[in-house]
Amino acid sequence: MELYLIRHGIAEDKQPDVKKDEERTLTKEGRQKTEKVAQQLKKLGLHFDLIATSSLVRARQTAEILISAGLSSQLEECKYLAHDGAIDSWVVDWLKPRNYSPQTQLALVGHEPDLSAWAEILVWGQAKSGLVLKKAGMIGVKLPETGSPLGRSQIFWLTPPRYLL
Amino acid sequence: MELYLIRHGIAEDKQPDVKKDEERTLTKEGRQKTEKVAQQLKKLGLHFDLIATSSLVRARQTAEILISAGLSSQLEECKYLAHDGAIDSWVVDWLKPRNYSPQTQLALVGHEPDLSAWAEILVWGQAKSGLVLKKAGMIGVKLPETGSPLGRSQIFWLTPPRYLL
Repeated sequence: MELYLIRHGIAEDKQPDVKKDEERTLTKEGRQKTEKVAQQLKKLGLHFDLIATSSLVRARQTAEILISAGLSSQLEECKYLAHDGAIDSWVVDWLKPRNYSPQTQLALVGHEPDLSAWAEILVWGQAKSGLVLKKAGMIGVKLPETGSPLGRSQIFWLTPPRYLL
Repeated sequence: MELYLIRHGIAEDKQPDVKKDEERTLTKEGRQKTEKVAQQLKKLGLHFDLIATSSLVRARQTAEILISAGLSSQLEECKYLAHDGAIDSWVVDWLKPRNYSPQTQLALVGHEPDLSAWAEILVWGQAKSGLVLKKAGMIGVKLPETGSPLGRSQIFWLTPPRYLL
């Protein structure tokens, strides 16, 4: 199975007195760059069986741009993708019960530093900030066909948006 | 400093009775794909201060294609990039004495499983086959400005050729 960990695009600055963090939206530039990334991924032939997204507005908007570009027809919110979600809980409580086939391609839209930490834990079993994941960037991880993916997966792709545009 | 670890393109099959391993050349397809990758890297604005290559023919030919595409004007062979070269020796004996500036961009052309192991050791301090590096694919690693890069670097790019073409 292939996981595509996608960070949300450029969002509004934090303004704690005006707007809650979870309501921050993509900026015009963030929206445009994310649309270009989505179009490029489509051109490269990618298709996701499902896009799971953090419920935070900037992630949800990013996921919707991916859907609009034709990268998937399935979108759902996933609580584990909000800040501080634990990948071991996601694997046990979300992924395993779904029993996906090895051909499944899933996109997860979320936040940093969580997504790059998830990738590191999938591959090396622990996170130590060894991956740079830019906004609207992506990490592709191949999970093993059987057994736990934690510490047993492989990274086959990691791209900042500037090398996709 | 940025390191770009580039695997040689598709080469002739092994024929131990006919040709030594180190003399295997790129196939026509390998040459064409590598040329496309080189042109795409040039289009993305990359430029290397130096391309260091394994002396094996298939790596040397790959490096020459990168030079022909205008990605660098400097090419040299590096014995540490031949099979089983040790990255700690490369860091101490090759990299450190050169005292490159933090803005330096180096390309290293070599072989698997060595290059992906080098990247893992740079980032996580040990290798466990957690990175997939295809022929003519590339891993971009950012080294820290001071101190040993081993276990202290970051991967900012990893791409198979099919996502560059």
